[in-house]
Amino acid sequence: MSKSEPPEQPEKIYLPRTSESESLKKIRHTTSHVMAMAVQKLFPKAQVTIGPSIENGFYYDFDKPEPFTEQDLKTIKKEMDKIIKRKLPVIREEVSRQEAKQRIQQLGEPYKLEILADLAEPITLYHLGDEWWDLCAGPHVENTSDLNPKAIELESVAGAYWRGDETKAQLQRIYGTAWEKPEQLAEYKRRKAEALKRDHRKLGKELGLFIFADPVGPGLPLWTPKGTVLRSTLEDFLKQEQLKRNYLPVVTPHIGRIDLFKVSGHWQNYKEDMFPMMAEDEEAASAEQGFVLKPMNCPFHIQIYKSELRSYRELPMRLAEFGTVYRYEQSGELGGLTRVRGFTVDDSHLFVTPEQLDQEFLNVVDLILSVFKSLQLKNFKARLSFRDPESDKYIGSDEAWQKSEGAIRRAVQKLGMNYFEGIGEAAFYGPKLDFIFSDALERKWQLGTVQVDYNLPERFELEYVAEDGTRKRPIMIHRAPFGSLERLIGILIEEYVGDFPFWLAPVQARLLPVSEAQLPFIKEVVEKMRSLGIRAEADTSGERLGKAIRNAEKAKIPVMAVVGAKEVEAESLSIRTRASGELGVMPVAEVVEKMKQAIVNRENF
Amino acid sequence: MSKSEPPEQPEKIYLPRTSESESLKKIRHTTSHVMAMAVQKLFPKAQVTIGPSIENGFYYDFDKPEPFTEQDLKTIKKEMDKIIKRKLPVIREEVSRQEAKQRIQQLGEPYKLEILADLAEPITLYHLGDEWWDLCAGPHVENTSDLNPKAIELESVAGAYWRGDETKAQLQRIYGTAWEKPEQLAEYKRRKAEALKRDHRKLGKELGLFIFADPVGPGLPLWTPKGTVLRSTLEDFLKQEQLKRNYLPVVTPHIGRIDLFKVSGHWQNYKEDMFPMMAEDEEAASAEQGFVLKPMNCPFHIQIYKSELRSYRELPMRLAEFGTVYRYEQSGELGGLTRVRGFTVDDSHLFVTPEQLDQEFLNVVDLILSVFKSLQLKNFKARLSFRDPESDKYIGSDEAWQKSEGAIRRAVQKLGMNYFEGIGEAAFYGPKLDFIFSDALERKWQLGTVQVDYNLPERFELEYVAEDGTRKRPIMIHRAPFGSLERLIGILIEEYVGDFPFWLAPVQARLLPVSEAQLPFIKEVVEKMRSLGIRAEADTSGERLGKAIRNAEKAKIPVMAVVGAKEVEAESLSIRTRASGELGVMPVAEVVEKMKQAIVNRENF
Repeated sequence: MSKSEPPEQPEKIYLPRTSESESLKKIRHTTSHVMAMAVQKLFPKAQVTIGPSIENGFYYDFDKPEPFTEQDLKTIKKEMDKIIKRKLPVIREEVSRQEAKQRIQQLGEPYKLEILADLAEPITLYHLGDEWWDLCAGPHVENTSDLNPKAIELESVAGAYWRGDETKAQLQRIYGTAWEKPEQLAEYKRRKAEALKRDHRKLGKELGLFIFADPVGPGLPLWTPKGTVLRSTLEDFLKQEQLKRNYLPVVTPHIGRIDLFKVSGHWQNYKEDMFPMMAEDEEAASAEQGFVLKPMNCPFHIQIYKSELRSYRELPMRLAEFGTVYRYEQSGELGGLTRVRGFTVDDSHLFVTPEQLDQEFLNVVDLILSVFKSLQLKNFKARLSFRDPESDKYIGSDEAWQKSEGAIRRAVQKLGMNYFEGIGEAAFYGPKLDFIFSDALERKWQLGTVQVDYNLPERFELEYVAEDGTRKRPIMIHRAPFGSLERLIGILIEEYVGDFPFWLAPVQARLLPVSEAQLPFIKEVVEKMRSLGIRAEADTSGERLGKAIRNAEKAKIPVMAVVGAKEVEAESLSIRTRASGELGVMPVAEVVEKMKQAIVNRENF
Repeated sequence: MSKSEPPEQPEKIYLPRTSESESLKKIRHTTSHVMAMAVQKLFPKAQVTIGPSIENGFYYDFDKPEPFTEQDLKTIKKEMDKIIKRKLPVIREEVSRQEAKQRIQQLGEPYKLEILADLAEPITLYHLGDEWWDLCAGPHVENTSDLNPKAIELESVAGAYWRGDETKAQLQRIYGTAWEKPEQLAEYKRRKAEALKRDHRKLGKELGLFIFADPVGPGLPLWTPKGTVLRSTLEDFLKQEQLKRNYLPVVTPHIGRIDLFKVSGHWQNYKEDMFPMMAEDEEAASAEQGFVLKPMNCPFHIQIYKSELRSYRELPMRLAEFGTVYRYEQSGELGGLTRVRGFTVDDSHLFVTPEQLDQEFLNVVDLILSVFKSLQLKNFKARLSFRDPESDKYIGSDEAWQKSEGAIRRAVQKLGMNYFEGIGEAAFYGPKLDFIFSDALERKWQLGTVQVDYNLPERFELEYVAEDGTRKRPIMIHRAPFGSLERLIGILIEEYVGDFPFWLAPVQARLLPVSEAQLPFIKEVVEKMRSLGIRAEADTSGERLGKAIRNAEKAKIPVMAVVGAKEVEAESLSIRTRASGELGVMPVAEVVEKMKQAIVNRENF
């Protein structure tokens, strides 16, 4: 139980981001200068532009007619190593604008002149020894000997435009990374390779789970049959859990009048994240009369609550919907399933009395933790996402915020949870308890969320008749264990490296015949399995067994059952699983029973 | 098997709509004149405006300062009876515009002058005897004695604006109905009362199934918990049936780029039924760059088909989605669930080879018929909805249309179905086989639909690799057994008069204690039932038994189980069902078993 992030486990190599380490910032920035010096030494006509550090390394943009080749990168790296070994001092020099201009003109580097024009005083140059300098504000290490050539690597070349403007000159950007120690570089490269292997965009395509289609638009995934099975298995799982806990399912439209979102405050506080309005004509548009896609489900669930006068006897009322919402993310920010423009929230809004708030909040956290357990997600922390008191992007009174933040703090303390605070991470209407998951590569993802909200009940004038007959205001809890079904699936694909546990796998078993003679038996078994809700299929490709097995491996199907004449004779299957390898020959009935158990218990086979 | 609508069953009284009967048209139109004459006789200052026949009767709009009362309607009807009994001839007179003008000015009726201004030659007047006339084009009966006072009734008064324009004078509209025979009027009144009793808007509210909320917008239902159970039970039922038939579920976004709908032809041919586009700014709007809500799911399923090169081995490929679509119906046309702006289509698109077309079409029809059977919907006919060759609202070649229409005709002939043709009822991209359901009141509703489409595969350049290695074009079948989930539920509510069969009922059983002492036992039984997927609940209201039973009756819960001390002793329930009345005392285990059976077999308890 701690208010700050706990230290990393000692056996893991920690890889700080540039923004977390002043020392790495200097190393990476200096390395980019060393690279630029090396490039200009090797390619005297190459012009340098800018070369900042980025979160995992650095880049530098060059204007050079011939493209850099893989071989060039190796040569440049060798040249960099030489420069580093020369132990050149890194010297800061402050000059007048006039002086800077003259020196740049001597070099004949027009990009630098443009950069200079935008710089504020003081104008500083950084020299590498007395051979090379660049306009730069630093910071840098003191000497190139502070860099470790074995902890530096040049990674790739990409195209870039001068000032990011596609009407301007096309440049070449060399990306590199730099660390304090070679072990860090090794770990970084390992994680990069691992991330590539786990990339859900790549795996999603290979396993046929979802597609993006240019004519539909960026950030709008289309779920193929296999991905849809995955989605509905996750939905059904949570629906069952919610049914046990007396949640009430609802279904609401994807659009509403703009006015609805004015009452909720979304229009005033969240408009830039919403899709453009749908208005009949310009007049309607300027009067803001029309419809808009919902970015959140809350105003709709509130309408259902409000449709009748509610009694304290009906509370807590837990309205739940797998509600698809749309947010107008900038298209440059979209990537795979982890940032999309349309996604399905496993949303619920609980309307509770003040007396019920603490217990209901705890029940929600309990549900979220049990969901994570079923999904085998262990490595997460709770973030208390509170408002930034300096910011004006929040609605509601100070008192309401204090009450909500208090309820969240009490809950995590009562549960003894591992938590930290995130100031400025609240929703515009209330604070949140967010579950931040660290994946196998130590990347952080927000999954589930619980929010306490005194503000929307106020804005929508919600009421209930209390036991004493007076009208009182309920409190709302917003919650979503998955957060976004799309992001969750993206994360699960990467976490499982595409190897879904048996109960989740889109295809759970594939039955492979040794020869065509076994196909009738196989089809019968597949039919039986399917009638029991097991997602089995027959391999009818006619490929020889070795190839058929490799195909099933490639498709990451959890259970393969090979059937030859002997198996048909004995009504049995030769089982090979991804989770536990060869299990040998088992009677069909036993296999089916084991599969049913694995599904019910959400286990591997 | 017939090409025209078969005759109505003889025991039913047929109630033709005005458009179906020239004789009724004359009767209704003349009755409206008789009513206007009676009104002006009783209220000489009342000014007449227009008085047409409508589908079930007629109305007349009057300008009169004091509102008509119920008592006025009775007095007017008496006066009408007198007029009819006088056997006044109905005389047509053709006059010059000038003559008409003069006569109207003599009467001092400015509305008639306005009407006259819009009339084309010849100008005709119709006289009732020599006491009353109106500008009118007819047709009328020859004598008021052709009207039967016992087959006429004045129904209601409503407000109306002159020319439907709310900036113009407010008028009073009297609605009436008129028939050839008193038996028809009696049957009409019986059906009207029955329709009121069955009205799904009223029942939906009473049973708490759905709401409309003004802040969300007209035609956008929000599904409350009970209605959501109904929806998902229907969805799950069809999903199971589709799984058995190897349909593949998909999930696609609710929006897409405008360009997508240009390729499909929706933008050019269906735009007026679509919501306004979402464009970032005016420039984007005028370039038609932006997103739009989908009015149909087809272009999205096509994207999934197109995402890989398909082989003949993958066909038929049956992509299925409960896809929510949005159509911009005029708000005046919206009413309850039968006409909405957002609805969920139980949609599927089958991509088939030419060889597979006929069989797949038959399989789809078979599925639809089995769905109707499970829903106990019997009274329907098939409509061959073909294009109107005169119209230009269709896309595609004559050849494609002939092929598609041919496939549909072959199917219904092979199945020996009861069908009729609906020229001009096709979708813009292809002909349809529509299932038209007649409800208990002989009203017609379109439910399921199957469509054959050669056009969209052409527009989207769909292909598959045929067995001979060449690229061929698949044919698409669009189909939806329910049509719209919303409309289906509206129709089912009316057809069942809110009494859902056991498997569909949102609450299947309510357990009522004789006294509080039985509550623990009841809660235990409810828990057991719920764990088995039976939607049971305990009555914990504390009301006395008589009231509790009446409440359950009112909520139309199929099974009531009363529990007193004896029932607890014997672990049994005293069962009373809506479908079969009192069943007496039965052991809990037997009740549970019977309930499970009723659910599986989709029967009543």
